[in-house]
Amino acid sequence: MPTQEQMKAALQKYVDGFNAHDVDSVLALFADDAVIEDPVGAPLRRGIKEIAEFYRGSVKVVESMKLAAPIRGSHSNAAAMAFVVNLQLEGKPCVISVIDVMTFNDDGRIATMKAYWGPRDMVVNA
Amino acid sequence: MPTQEQMKAALQKYVDGFNAHDVDSVLALFADDAVIEDPVGAPLRRGIKEIAEFYRGSVKVVESMKLAAPIRGSHSNAAAMAFVVNLQLEGKPCVISVIDVMTFNDDGRIATMKAYWGPRDMVVNA
Repeated sequence: MPTQEQMKAALQKYVDGFNAHDVDSVLALFADDAVIEDPVGAPLRRGIKEIAEFYRGSVKVVESMKLAAPIRGSHSNAAAMAFVVNLQLEGKPCVISVIDVMTFNDDGRIATMKAYWGPRDMVVNA
Repeated sequence: MPTQEQMKAALQKYVDGFNAHDVDSVLALFADDAVIEDPVGAPLRRGIKEIAEFYRGSVKVVESMKLAAPIRGSHSNAAAMAFVVNLQLEGKPCVISVIDVMTFNDDGRIATMKAYWGPRDMVVNA
């Protein structure tokens, strides 16, 4: 099981990767058989191929990602963070408030990611 | 499925219940067959009886609970929040940084609660 420091560093790298618009550094954090749900309630994306497709799109539209509070660990293989994303949605500035929960495999790579944000957590500015 | 507003209101009531030291108002939010994991990695507490035992202890020691960012919803029956807890632990002031994820049943009551905080997210002041 990865340490608290390793998991928190991975979440920080995820944020840094978005801010650097570096999709490869984001994808490098994930296990090949990872499963993501973003937002929670949307269809699952299974495996690095579907995940890469998702992040190629999202890293492109996200302008910045900022932590809203320090990253939390757990007493297990999970870590979580609250953050705010600024992006362009069909040419309009948009802000989404999110909490991500990630679990890790024994190699320290992300096995699952769930992004908690609802319709009311996305504000589009005309 | 409860609405975004209903789920967020329940999470706010959870925080308010702690701050009012009102364990009954916290317990009223939970389904009879709810399951909680606090912290994630600890043994599960199953059913309102075990959950009541847990909250009777924790509401007593918690001095205050403060949201670190607005409560997040989802596109499903889940909501999440980042917060900071001030408590007394064996007479010493203690701060824990937490992210809670809750899922809800169709009656709008909490079905599951997972609290993400690790050993490094608890700071005890001597």
